[in-house]
Amino acid sequence: MTASLPTWSEKMLQLLRRMNNFYLPGSTLHSCIRFEVEGEQVGWLQPKIASILSRFPDVFTSHGGAMSVNRCLDSYAKRSEAVDQVLQELRKDESLTCLKGWRNEKYAVMPRFCDTPLMCMERSATSLFGVKRYGVHLNGYSWDDSGRLCMWLGHRSATKQTYPGKLDNLAAGGLAASCGVKQTMVKECEEEACIPACIAEKARPVGTVSYTYEDEEGVFPEGQFVFDLELPLDFKPRIGDGEVQNFYFYPIEKVKELLVTEEFKPNCALVVLDFLIRHSVIQPDTEPYYHEFVAGLHKSL
Amino acid sequence: MTASLPTWSEKMLQLLRRMNNFYLPGSTLHSCIRFEVEGEQVGWLQPKIASILSRFPDVFTSHGGAMSVNRCLDSYAKRSEAVDQVLQELRKDESLTCLKGWRNEKYAVMPRFCDTPLMCMERSATSLFGVKRYGVHLNGYSWDDSGRLCMWLGHRSATKQTYPGKLDNLAAGGLAASCGVKQTMVKECEEEACIPACIAEKARPVGTVSYTYEDEEGVFPEGQFVFDLELPLDFKPRIGDGEVQNFYFYPIEKVKELLVTEEFKPNCALVVLDFLIRHSVIQPDTEPYYHEFVAGLHKSL
Repeated sequence: MTASLPTWSEKMLQLLRRMNNFYLPGSTLHSCIRFEVEGEQVGWLQPKIASILSRFPDVFTSHGGAMSVNRCLDSYAKRSEAVDQVLQELRKDESLTCLKGWRNEKYAVMPRFCDTPLMCMERSATSLFGVKRYGVHLNGYSWDDSGRLCMWLGHRSATKQTYPGKLDNLAAGGLAASCGVKQTMVKECEEEACIPACIAEKARPVGTVSYTYEDEEGVFPEGQFVFDLELPLDFKPRIGDGEVQNFYFYPIEKVKELLVTEEFKPNCALVVLDFLIRHSVIQPDTEPYYHEFVAGLHKSL
Repeated sequence: MTASLPTWSEKMLQLLRRMNNFYLPGSTLHSCIRFEVEGEQVGWLQPKIASILSRFPDVFTSHGGAMSVNRCLDSYAKRSEAVDQVLQELRKDESLTCLKGWRNEKYAVMPRFCDTPLMCMERSATSLFGVKRYGVHLNGYSWDDSGRLCMWLGHRSATKQTYPGKLDNLAAGGLAASCGVKQTMVKECEEEACIPACIAEKARPVGTVSYTYEDEEGVFPEGQFVFDLELPLDFKPRIGDGEVQNFYFYPIEKVKELLVTEEFKPNCALVVLDFLIRHSVIQPDTEPYYHEFVAGLHKSL
């Protein structure tokens, strides 16, 4: 008896499961406690993290299945400042590997995207608190001279802190505190791929991709705003801030094959999968996991 | 102090909550037991239904938190036949109102859409067993002479069994056992709106919309395959099998307003909401519940 190799569909399903492993049996989901600010849940704390934070009772207080930022810290500024001081202290702790990737980039913390932020937090610390991060991702595409759908991919710099050398969307970035969604997308287009604002502004918002994974660095609930940009066939992105070392223009079938390889940054592969579904490259009568793919691209806690 | 009227966004969020009320606190979700066939879950049974089914021990057997079709019924045909006999008996029970809408239309029962069906079941009974139903929905649209995006809506017949007189998508229908997805869509286009196959086949599959609600008739997990069809501006649908009494061609802003009124069949409103997001009519910087909308359109058990 020979074991058959997994198909493309099976490999994609595995990727979706990995990117949503916080929902799988055996995850820490059921042992996590809620992280709350002003009585509203804004994240998830693994037990080992809750135990570390309990060493700072002036900032974090526990109560029945939840840990809160102390109510005495009664403003956005006070909470942000107090938590930052704790994080500066924790950076000395070698075991919290995620903080080694300190970015000096502040993320807004809120129960839902539409709510007023309750505090802000260093980007690299959000996984400790299981705070949801939001970002923007751009699918850049054209039809070539023979009418084939083709997509631009970025090749991440070998020196990038996260996912060096992996394939990426044409442009993408985190939504920093108090920045607009489209504004962030246009800024990333300019910085990463030298796409002028007059072109980038034609990108169309087409939905979101959401997933939650966990690893040794914490819990990562992420929500990406997705944009599609059809580019003129003679347009070529150029290397901008050096986060990308090259750009490739591939037929969509080649992009599809690459998605399930180790070459691709996993969350960017999900953004392209969503594109393949919306653009009918993947069809319900021939893709057995069509429903599972759409569900896996839109998981919410 | 005057209470302000709910905004469009708030009304849409309420509709999404209503269509996903099985996930809300207070639903029967946590008192339901799993409905299994051949060891695989295929539905949810509310306690009162499980109690009724336990009167038929030759067909249904209980075991730790689940009720199964008896293992002795060891084929698709035997299971379908035995369950049908029970349902014929239960039709005499006046309290099971859903069975009054008996359709003589068989739905496939399977753990996931891609699996081989384990049995089939009368459509009107699926909610008793919380078996997931699949269907197809078509967004038909054009740009009018002044470049405005407009959409075709169907006005359901006043004599239709479900949702009489409500607004509907241009075409829609349930996926009967052993029918293809695109094939069903093309068939519904012909039957309901006299759209010839040569036009209907140009419809593009663009994803799914999934939700689960419950009411006095049971649990309704539903998954709709969504198609978009851009129609020539001079094309007009015509009344076909009489399930629709009229068609309207409205600017998309008017359609958007109608979605949150009592005029619209609720699941069709969700299919249009998905269209509005994919076609950038709704945008993340101006729609506070953008993420919640996308999440609510793709809930899975």
